[in-house]
Amino acid sequence: MSLRAGIVVTGTEVLTGRVVDRNGPWLSDRLTELGVEHAYTLIVGDRPQDVHDALRFFAERGCDLVVTSGGLGPTEDDLTAQVVADFQQRPVALDVPLEERIWKILEGVRSRWPDIDEEAIRAANRKQALVPAGATVLEPVGTAPGLLVPPPDGTDGPLVVVLPGPPRELKPMWGAAVEEPVLKAVLERATSYELRMLRLFGIPESEIAETLRVARDGGVDIDALEITTCLRGGEVEVVTRYEPTQASIYGAFEDVVRARHADTLFSDDGTLVDDQVADALLGAGETIATAESCTGGLVAARLTNRPGASRYVRGAIVAYDNAVKTAVAGVDPALIDEHGAVSEQVARALAAGAIARLDADVGVGITGIAGPDGGTAEKPVGLVWFAVLHRDGREMVRSLVIPGGRDDVRDRSTTVALHLVRRLLLGTGGLPER
Amino acid sequence: MSLRAGIVVTGTEVLTGRVVDRNGPWLSDRLTELGVEHAYTLIVGDRPQDVHDALRFFAERGCDLVVTSGGLGPTEDDLTAQVVADFQQRPVALDVPLEERIWKILEGVRSRWPDIDEEAIRAANRKQALVPAGATVLEPVGTAPGLLVPPPDGTDGPLVVVLPGPPRELKPMWGAAVEEPVLKAVLERATSYELRMLRLFGIPESEIAETLRVARDGGVDIDALEITTCLRGGEVEVVTRYEPTQASIYGAFEDVVRARHADTLFSDDGTLVDDQVADALLGAGETIATAESCTGGLVAARLTNRPGASRYVRGAIVAYDNAVKTAVAGVDPALIDEHGAVSEQVARALAAGAIARLDADVGVGITGIAGPDGGTAEKPVGLVWFAVLHRDGREMVRSLVIPGGRDDVRDRSTTVALHLVRRLLLGTGGLPER
Repeated sequence: MSLRAGIVVTGTEVLTGRVVDRNGPWLSDRLTELGVEHAYTLIVGDRPQDVHDALRFFAERGCDLVVTSGGLGPTEDDLTAQVVADFQQRPVALDVPLEERIWKILEGVRSRWPDIDEEAIRAANRKQALVPAGATVLEPVGTAPGLLVPPPDGTDGPLVVVLPGPPRELKPMWGAAVEEPVLKAVLERATSYELRMLRLFGIPESEIAETLRVARDGGVDIDALEITTCLRGGEVEVVTRYEPTQASIYGAFEDVVRARHADTLFSDDGTLVDDQVADALLGAGETIATAESCTGGLVAARLTNRPGASRYVRGAIVAYDNAVKTAVAGVDPALIDEHGAVSEQVARALAAGAIARLDADVGVGITGIAGPDGGTAEKPVGLVWFAVLHRDGREMVRSLVIPGGRDDVRDRSTTVALHLVRRLLLGTGGLPER
Repeated sequence: MSLRAGIVVTGTEVLTGRVVDRNGPWLSDRLTELGVEHAYTLIVGDRPQDVHDALRFFAERGCDLVVTSGGLGPTEDDLTAQVVADFQQRPVALDVPLEERIWKILEGVRSRWPDIDEEAIRAANRKQALVPAGATVLEPVGTAPGLLVPPPDGTDGPLVVVLPGPPRELKPMWGAAVEEPVLKAVLERATSYELRMLRLFGIPESEIAETLRVARDGGVDIDALEITTCLRGGEVEVVTRYEPTQASIYGAFEDVVRARHADTLFSDDGTLVDDQVADALLGAGETIATAESCTGGLVAARLTNRPGASRYVRGAIVAYDNAVKTAVAGVDPALIDEHGAVSEQVARALAAGAIARLDADVGVGITGIAGPDGGTAEKPVGLVWFAVLHRDGREMVRSLVIPGGRDDVRDRSTTVALHLVRRLLLGTGGLPER
């Protein structure tokens, strides 16, 4: 039997998007890894009735497990623990030793803000030590404990796992939760699935729809697989989930994708283009630097996002102003005069400048018109020139007109740049031939 | 009577977080502006039954309006239109003129990928022209039309607005939807609310909880307001929604916040620190440049995120490697030898180098240990030195030990840097005195 779970993300700030929810997706991955079917994420504001309705929605749909995130803080609108207790019909009581442990944790906060009234902090945090009868406490990583709250005695409703909202608290506390016998007992009932991901760059999503039809027409029983495709920042992801007994069908499907998309398939093992670029540089013992105009440092920020990036990233020049392009990145002013700042020649000069000025093996030069203004008939908004040069003479130079707004142009340009670096370093995949 | 709405975001890729949902939050803001109470966002995978259950959830809770995003693409897992049609008991039929209009739009795609079989595209996109009986069509911005699908005849269920997933399609199509009489008729029943936001930087969220208690104890009837507080990237946001008749209560509450938090309150008009920095630079006719180590270009990327940034951003040096700090940013190597790369002296030298090398009025220098490795007892992971220098001699220099992982340290450092720039330029608010 398949085990189903729902995720409740609480917080008006998440509902309205002032905070981007990272917990729902992260928990979804963890549940999927454990073979739990994650059917819904429900985002609700900070109202008791709405949180209660969310729990009821999952219970009525036969979920075995509900994970909540958020609403455990010290302010008055933090009410998840109380609502879950009510829903599971379990009265709360103050756990005095827990209150003391929270108080000890708060010593750090109190020393950072010495002017703040101690009793105010204590009062605000006391409710975090209220525990429903029969619940298991997860020790706080921040100041809020988590809870595992079983259904009302004698019923078979969902176990509710109550976790705090900050991701750096939620993640380790989920790790602790799965070690608790009450959750382990639920998870033992899960089916195991295989999950595979193929990533392609440089084709439209409709091509994958056609590939699915080709596979089916060719006798591959793809209905035995659960295939989802999506477009993400210009990359197409094909995610397939299947029971281990269907592995040969998945293999046949993957063969069809490989045959039809050899030039654009770049990842079959979950790696991102970022991972592949980093590994290729590390493997070759080479370094990289960028000289960016329209991307404003986004490529450098993305290259340095991984731990250990200092081993292969030398740095970057964000040459937003033309004077910076010439004085700092070493672009010949005559090139800008003759061809314009957004041109193949300037992209090449930026890449060469990154190599020379920052002493790197690989240089990335990007110059384009992010918009919304600055476009002309000849050079429209969205036109971006990319040059990736290697000291040894290899190069990948392209231009694209990227549709959408300023954010789209900047983000997509960053991804394109990484793919050009990847292709230069690895030689195959990830870009359509032309 | 209050008008309630729900948002359904479809797509397994969103549920599992491979794509971050931007539509739910954006639609939430639009609904709130229109005085519609947005109670839930439900994220569901690409399964007909789950999408159907989502619609039923909102209908059962008395929602007057449901907005769906996604599931209108050409692939087999795009099924929202069909599920909504079934839910509203409205059979679909092919709209031949609409199919032709979509086909014309696809000419662009066909010319970009000339090798692709035309009939494959046509077949994949034909289902996008299936329209439920009695529904209003929203013209496509991409290739997928939107739909306004009324409840079954003779019932008072919710009107369902069906929009595509890509934000640059969804946003203009929502704009078109609110002009349609069938949606206007629903929206006329909404109450209007005032929405106000206060932003503070440099205090813990628990201080706001205390401020709410102080306001209540001081006789402000804050229960007549709907106040939510949240912590976002180190900033505390206090959002208040109230009916216009309660304006004087809101005014009294805001006075209490101002009195207690004068030094850390930095925005009362919805502006972000980014807006304030940009406006201050534009107003003074001054320019800015950064020299960043641990943030890897994130501050430059954020400064250049706004249209027109070229008027005040000169550029940046991402000095990841110490040799780049000295050769490009002009940091005296002796400072690094004597004090270490992560030190007040090097942060100051980076800021001075940004001013000198990039010819800016304001220079930002950042150097820190983003982790997970590289920390010592004296200089732990998370230690970041910030120097913001102005050519005229003003300065803001601070160090912080930022908790959390590598992403937290980099992101929080970026926000701190902007607040230091803001404080230097504006002189008040946004930072605790010390």
